[in-house]
Amino acid sequence: MTALNALLRPRSVAVIGASADASKMTGRPVGYLQKYAFDGAIWPVNPRVETIAGLRCYPDVASLPDAPDAAIVLLGPDRAEAAVRDLAARGCKAAIVLASGYGEANEDGARRQQALKDAAGSMRLLGPNTIGLVNLTDGIMLSATGALEVADLPAGRISVVSQSGGILGSLLSRAADRGIGFAKLVSTGNEADLDSSDLIEHLVEDDATDVIAVYMEGLRRPEAFKRAARRAAELGKPIVVYKVGRSESGARAATSHTGALAGADRVYDALFRQVGVIRAGSFTDLLDIPAALVAGRRMAGERVAILTSTGGAGTLLADNCGIAGIEVPPPDDITTERLATLLNEDQAAIGRNPVDVTLAGLRPDLFRGAIDALLESPGYDGVVVVIGSSALATPDIVAGAIVECQARSNKPVLAYVSPHAPHLVRLLNGKGIPAFATPESCASVLRALHRRPLPPAPEAIAVDEAVLAGLPAGNLNEAESKAIFARFGMPVTREHVAADADAAAAAAHAFGGEVVLKILSRAIAHKSDLGGVRVGLTAEQVPDACATMLETLRAAGAPTPEGFLVQERIRGGIEMILGFHRDPQLGPVILLGAGGVAAELFQDTALRVLPITRADAEAMVGELKAARLLRGWRGGAPADIAALIDAVMAFATMAGAAGERLLEAEINPLFVLPEGAGVRAVDGLVVLR
Amino acid sequence: MTALNALLRPRSVAVIGASADASKMTGRPVGYLQKYAFDGAIWPVNPRVETIAGLRCYPDVASLPDAPDAAIVLLGPDRAEAAVRDLAARGCKAAIVLASGYGEANEDGARRQQALKDAAGSMRLLGPNTIGLVNLTDGIMLSATGALEVADLPAGRISVVSQSGGILGSLLSRAADRGIGFAKLVSTGNEADLDSSDLIEHLVEDDATDVIAVYMEGLRRPEAFKRAARRAAELGKPIVVYKVGRSESGARAATSHTGALAGADRVYDALFRQVGVIRAGSFTDLLDIPAALVAGRRMAGERVAILTSTGGAGTLLADNCGIAGIEVPPPDDITTERLATLLNEDQAAIGRNPVDVTLAGLRPDLFRGAIDALLESPGYDGVVVVIGSSALATPDIVAGAIVECQARSNKPVLAYVSPHAPHLVRLLNGKGIPAFATPESCASVLRALHRRPLPPAPEAIAVDEAVLAGLPAGNLNEAESKAIFARFGMPVTREHVAADADAAAAAAHAFGGEVVLKILSRAIAHKSDLGGVRVGLTAEQVPDACATMLETLRAAGAPTPEGFLVQERIRGGIEMILGFHRDPQLGPVILLGAGGVAAELFQDTALRVLPITRADAEAMVGELKAARLLRGWRGGAPADIAALIDAVMAFATMAGAAGERLLEAEINPLFVLPEGAGVRAVDGLVVLR
Repeated sequence: MTALNALLRPRSVAVIGASADASKMTGRPVGYLQKYAFDGAIWPVNPRVETIAGLRCYPDVASLPDAPDAAIVLLGPDRAEAAVRDLAARGCKAAIVLASGYGEANEDGARRQQALKDAAGSMRLLGPNTIGLVNLTDGIMLSATGALEVADLPAGRISVVSQSGGILGSLLSRAADRGIGFAKLVSTGNEADLDSSDLIEHLVEDDATDVIAVYMEGLRRPEAFKRAARRAAELGKPIVVYKVGRSESGARAATSHTGALAGADRVYDALFRQVGVIRAGSFTDLLDIPAALVAGRRMAGERVAILTSTGGAGTLLADNCGIAGIEVPPPDDITTERLATLLNEDQAAIGRNPVDVTLAGLRPDLFRGAIDALLESPGYDGVVVVIGSSALATPDIVAGAIVECQARSNKPVLAYVSPHAPHLVRLLNGKGIPAFATPESCASVLRALHRRPLPPAPEAIAVDEAVLAGLPAGNLNEAESKAIFARFGMPVTREHVAADADAAAAAAHAFGGEVVLKILSRAIAHKSDLGGVRVGLTAEQVPDACATMLETLRAAGAPTPEGFLVQERIRGGIEMILGFHRDPQLGPVILLGAGGVAAELFQDTALRVLPITRADAEAMVGELKAARLLRGWRGGAPADIAALIDAVMAFATMAGAAGERLLEAEINPLFVLPEGAGVRAVDGLVVLR
Repeated sequence: MTALNALLRPRSVAVIGASADASKMTGRPVGYLQKYAFDGAIWPVNPRVETIAGLRCYPDVASLPDAPDAAIVLLGPDRAEAAVRDLAARGCKAAIVLASGYGEANEDGARRQQALKDAAGSMRLLGPNTIGLVNLTDGIMLSATGALEVADLPAGRISVVSQSGGILGSLLSRAADRGIGFAKLVSTGNEADLDSSDLIEHLVEDDATDVIAVYMEGLRRPEAFKRAARRAAELGKPIVVYKVGRSESGARAATSHTGALAGADRVYDALFRQVGVIRAGSFTDLLDIPAALVAGRRMAGERVAILTSTGGAGTLLADNCGIAGIEVPPPDDITTERLATLLNEDQAAIGRNPVDVTLAGLRPDLFRGAIDALLESPGYDGVVVVIGSSALATPDIVAGAIVECQARSNKPVLAYVSPHAPHLVRLLNGKGIPAFATPESCASVLRALHRRPLPPAPEAIAVDEAVLAGLPAGNLNEAESKAIFARFGMPVTREHVAADADAAAAAAHAFGGEVVLKILSRAIAHKSDLGGVRVGLTAEQVPDACATMLETLRAAGAPTPEGFLVQERIRGGIEMILGFHRDPQLGPVILLGAGGVAAELFQDTALRVLPITRADAEAMVGELKAARLLRGWRGGAPADIAALIDAVMAFATMAGAAGERLLEAEINPLFVLPEGAGVRAVDGLVVLR
């Protein structure tokens, strides 16, 4: 039995600091274990009491009849450490520490947390600052959350991992209201030991779990998360994440809440996309998307039919679908004819989507016939039925008809409930028809139901020590930087390093025509600001230009450059940027963006966490608004997108091979020339540590 | 008594086609009038029945004891027209027609709708295809909506105008669940006569209405809406609109639903901003924002304190606030000290926002003290209290404390309820504390509570027939177009119209230096595509260039141009676009955008409906991402923004003075030169009808 198995499905549980007073927080866990009929051994530990809820109470951990599989520690931070040490010594496999006042509080707390982890030794630890875990599959509650007071918590096949205990409680009560059941819910709290990735990895393999919903403030071990996500994709078990930290206020709050380091939110977004994780856009979606996915059906495309008996709600839904990128096309001719015959209406009124069946909607046979017709149409990947006030009087008839029709098809049928009718939402969810109270959720869910295959995992790039051998820490100069890029097949401008003005002039003569002259300096990252770039010089103009550059640097008190760089002049390309940096949390990141002013002003950039596949590189180009420019703007010639994708891959390979010493790299601009003419790295910078 | 007063507060109501069977839709209205204790006369009309619900039933309209103030017509479209004609003849002031099968159905229906309107004559008509109206202020229900079955519909000070009856019913039931009360709700349906603007205009003056919520599919009379919105702003009565048609699917659905013409959604957005109307971003917001506004308090700025007893929900809310542009700054030193003393915690843990009072939150005195401290801090404009599971056991204590603290301040206090707890949301709303079940709504509401003064109304521009006198329909050439712009003070390039190559060369000589040469042609809108623009020519190069241009046009089979345009060459400016067009629904629209590729690729444009004020023009510049470029990008010189705003105003004045013949106008590019150097219209086009 692994420690995580012992934690989630213990046969014996010690409850350290249990109270005989059921109304107290510390009295709840024993009560919940009993209420949900835990069939293993419950061992309350409390030196001041003989029995608790009819169970023998032990004075200390040492007196326990055996090593417990799991323990739940209800003591304050002052006494929890000793209890954890005792439990580890007794051979307990995993302990849950509920107390707060650790890493989330202050520096003293962070020290306490480290001591707690040390005390646990090889015993696994959940928390501190957690409300524990709830296993509804097996009826095992290791928690003090008041949410367990809810009378009817249906078991289901969605598991939840939450870094916040309060959010876990909130999800529990909200799901119960909607008739959505859970398998396991775990609050990881401060993650002194076990973290979200551990739990996700475990739950992916859980036979009772089909979908995993995650509330995330930050990711401590991105590699473990990626592994778990890829494994989940293999098994066809979707992971849905609601991650806070999209705004600065949120990121700050998350950091002080669980002490998780904040990586850039856009990098998380990229990471989720790369490993096929669905990101919930709203808190409501964190329940609604898993609830729809767990029903098991997927859409082959994004075309839905909306069947409504209330025009306004149909319009509302169609509008929200459109915003979410879901198509709401009119029915094909055959379907239109079928509906018109069935409903005895003229085709003009019927050949629309939403399909409005105001009166016919009240007759179950017509209602069923219309759903069947839409489900059987090859033009639709799914159907949403809008439930209006008229259905409130006969919920079972409406629900029954939908369930019956869905059974005849393999496409999903969803329900949007327009009036306030929680009983109807519950009823439908309970019958396997995902039902929603907001049009926004319904639209997000439709997007999530569209099955997209996860591209193959990228290959890791082996570090090649030779790449950076002999290069100093800090900024490299342009020639050194571009030499590294070129080594990986990146086309760079033809150029010549010249030690002085004479050598530069000679190089310009050799090039012929107009050249670009730059100073070459590790110390000066922004050459242009110090007059260090001149474009369109003839060889004759080069010596004077060199002299002027040196004079300008002297006047500005800048260090003497290593020399000059004489380059061919590139024309007629589209300017792009390729960048590399290390996210403090998620590691190596590659960026592709529109160049010039556009990159910063319009934030037209795409990110990926390394390593990447070619499919990732293609998707990055596709994400940019500048993609339209690259494909041929207003009848212009298309740019060499294939060469751009090669360049992205070369840059990614370079970053992988360079290894940990590489801090930052940038090609700016990267000129993308017309189709067939390739790309050129025109300027570049590498920063090493 | 006006017709709208008669409709909303009748002293006598005829119910045409009333059924004695209360379970039928046609049986409901008499029942609802009685259930809500209407104290006027109820006159059911049905030739087949003697009495209905104890009331004498009349065989026809002619037999009614008097002219009814209002009538509700429950007949199908085949018989409604005759009833409406009879009612008009009998002197009824306003009738409601519930039946569908009119303009929303097909062309036959549209004809029926016109006949219905004709039959009404001077009697006002609500509908058809409406569920009628609900007046909770006075307990008068003129509706058949099943939503009125809800036992407890609280009266309040929010009125609703909805183009969809189903949405009205949905809002009624959702509001009841949340304890949100309404004054009047009117469904305008197909708007054969009375439209949303009529109802808004009326409700703005209603003493029982403080806030108006509108569900909108399209606006038939934008001028009436603008008038009503400005009047509402004067009276301090906010209007909140949820408008569908943000996506193509939604716009299409709206058109077929109520037959409303679809204007561009972005133009609606601009219009709402111009008249101080708040646009609800989600359907939930359409209830939540009015519910918060009706509580009466506003925020002077956008800085909020979040007080929470559950870290995760606080983080969730802080994140959503940040996304919505609401600041969540840490408390100032004095407030931090006050909180630390009160809560007996160290300042490091307290000097954060959200303010986490995990345990102290359970003690009412500390909870009250913390709310007071935050409300009294000059650093906050409002406070949001996060209600966690721990409060569920003692809802009255929590609610009581919040109510008490709010009473001591003039700042708003809101509540975000983290677990599913509709009773707590109802309780708080009922006590005047706006309470929300989603963090997204809470954040939108905070934005809406920030009081922003409505700028003064723009002055209408009188049409000046002289502006377009003598000009033909269709495209004008560049010189003609720019002459119109120049007339209104728009700085245009210095330029000279030349009949032939010699005249062009002479003009170039007179300018000196490099010039721009263009063909001048009404027939050719895209000169560049036909080689009709040459930049940077010397006077000597002009004759050859003219010959080449003519030859190119001949080769392309293009018409002979009117002549040539010789222009000064403008350098060193930022390219912008100024445009004018007519929205099919909302009328004259002005557009300001970043020029070049950016305008289309990055959609960096700002719109306003004409006429505008200078404040509008300033706001337009501020809305652009390119504003950063104009203000001086990366240490560059700032551009002449004042001159750009002058140009926007000049263009707007031109468009107003030109009158209805002006179809389109564009200045592209408009060069904005460095501060003090003004702007120049470099190219332009005017299209007349």
